[in-house]
Amino acid sequence: MPEIVTAAMLVIGDEILSGRTKDKNIGHLADMMTAIGIDLKEVRIVPDEEAEIVGAVNALRARYTYLFTTGGIGPTHDDITADSVAKAFGVPCEYDAKAYAMLEANYASRDLEFTEARKRMARMPRGADHIDNPISVAPGFRIGNVHVMAGVPSIFQAMLDNVVPTLKVGTKMLSATVHCPFGEGQVGGPLGDIQKAHPDTIIGSYPKYGDGKFWTELVVRARSQQALDAARADVEAMVAGLARAAG
Amino acid sequence: MPEIVTAAMLVIGDEILSGRTKDKNIGHLADMMTAIGIDLKEVRIVPDEEAEIVGAVNALRARYTYLFTTGGIGPTHDDITADSVAKAFGVPCEYDAKAYAMLEANYASRDLEFTEARKRMARMPRGADHIDNPISVAPGFRIGNVHVMAGVPSIFQAMLDNVVPTLKVGTKMLSATVHCPFGEGQVGGPLGDIQKAHPDTIIGSYPKYGDGKFWTELVVRARSQQALDAARADVEAMVAGLARAAG
Repeated sequence: MPEIVTAAMLVIGDEILSGRTKDKNIGHLADMMTAIGIDLKEVRIVPDEEAEIVGAVNALRARYTYLFTTGGIGPTHDDITADSVAKAFGVPCEYDAKAYAMLEANYASRDLEFTEARKRMARMPRGADHIDNPISVAPGFRIGNVHVMAGVPSIFQAMLDNVVPTLKVGTKMLSATVHCPFGEGQVGGPLGDIQKAHPDTIIGSYPKYGDGKFWTELVVRARSQQALDAARADVEAMVAGLARAAG
Repeated sequence: MPEIVTAAMLVIGDEILSGRTKDKNIGHLADMMTAIGIDLKEVRIVPDEEAEIVGAVNALRARYTYLFTTGGIGPTHDDITADSVAKAFGVPCEYDAKAYAMLEANYASRDLEFTEARKRMARMPRGADHIDNPISVAPGFRIGNVHVMAGVPSIFQAMLDNVVPTLKVGTKMLSATVHCPFGEGQVGGPLGDIQKAHPDTIIGSYPKYGDGKFWTELVVRARSQQALDAARADVEAMVAGLARAAG
């Protein structure tokens, strides 16, 4: 039997909801999860408000194998992710001795003052483990099944690279794409029949539109190569049949 | 007193969660809402699964003034948004006579068969109003405070343009950005004090990193020009002070 491991993502930040910053992390996490064999099942974007973050963290960590968060772990007053995650877990948010020492040494080496704001980045929920940050030192953290990472894409990606080897993964979802020069209205009927005949696959149909033309990408997904190949063959035969009929 | 109108967005589709398609609609909706004076407060992305869509629609429509959905309204078996929204409202999902006639005429004029799959696009919850689709005819729909639109970005944008004039809007959130050549660690302390002194504003700090350098964009937001200007002046003075200190 295939093993299923699930994940959710929580994007934290007013700037995404106002449109000022366009998120680049959702697509990256989605690609990475698919590549390693974890099903990303839900994403939420919430503002920098404690009650919203606490509510979303608790809803999502309870439902999925893993929760990944981005944003709100910097040194400024609007960075409230560490406090909110601590509150969600019912533990204190406090200076982590290792993170504090690491940041203190880093600022000393750069001849910069270790300000109260910078010290904030050493705070995390009691009992959390570090997620190393090779770019700007201040670590993310893991507590329970929740991984808290930075919102700046380059730092998020570097942190995620450190997290991935620690994750339990499931049976990978394989996929095959069949290009279809016809619109969804023509393939909809027969494609539904193929889906019914191959219940161990997920067949998706993605309408494309550009330069005044419609076409469709048909995507078969399955956790077994055999199931994938069988459904793909049927989809290809269906498209070939339509092409012959169109003459 | 400023009037607040809120919104949430629900993005429906396995292809976004698998990473296969990168969402382009969240940023567009966010920009549009900010421009017209509606606060986008939450976004969720869920798979093509009825229970997930129903749950999210009911959670979000109850909490916010408006809910906007994208995706899942095409003609194929995996397009289950209309059925799921009907279920969320507890009404039947049925052929809409006007949509049916419009689609039938359109396919007849193009000498194309009005297949069962194409007929699916005329289905909507009983009592829904159309959202016109100037690109590919098949309408979106509105029921209660929920606006159901296509996932293909060009069609979503055209539908949203038709929806915007029908929306009640609030007092616009104004914003001003102050460029800051210093990292967040240096501005974090004084910026928190400025936020406290200007409680009718929202001051955000957005760390930027590129080419080995850190800088910060400081964004002041407020619904009154006077409040915005006062807080911006304090932020600018703070940055100027740091620049003098850095010599």
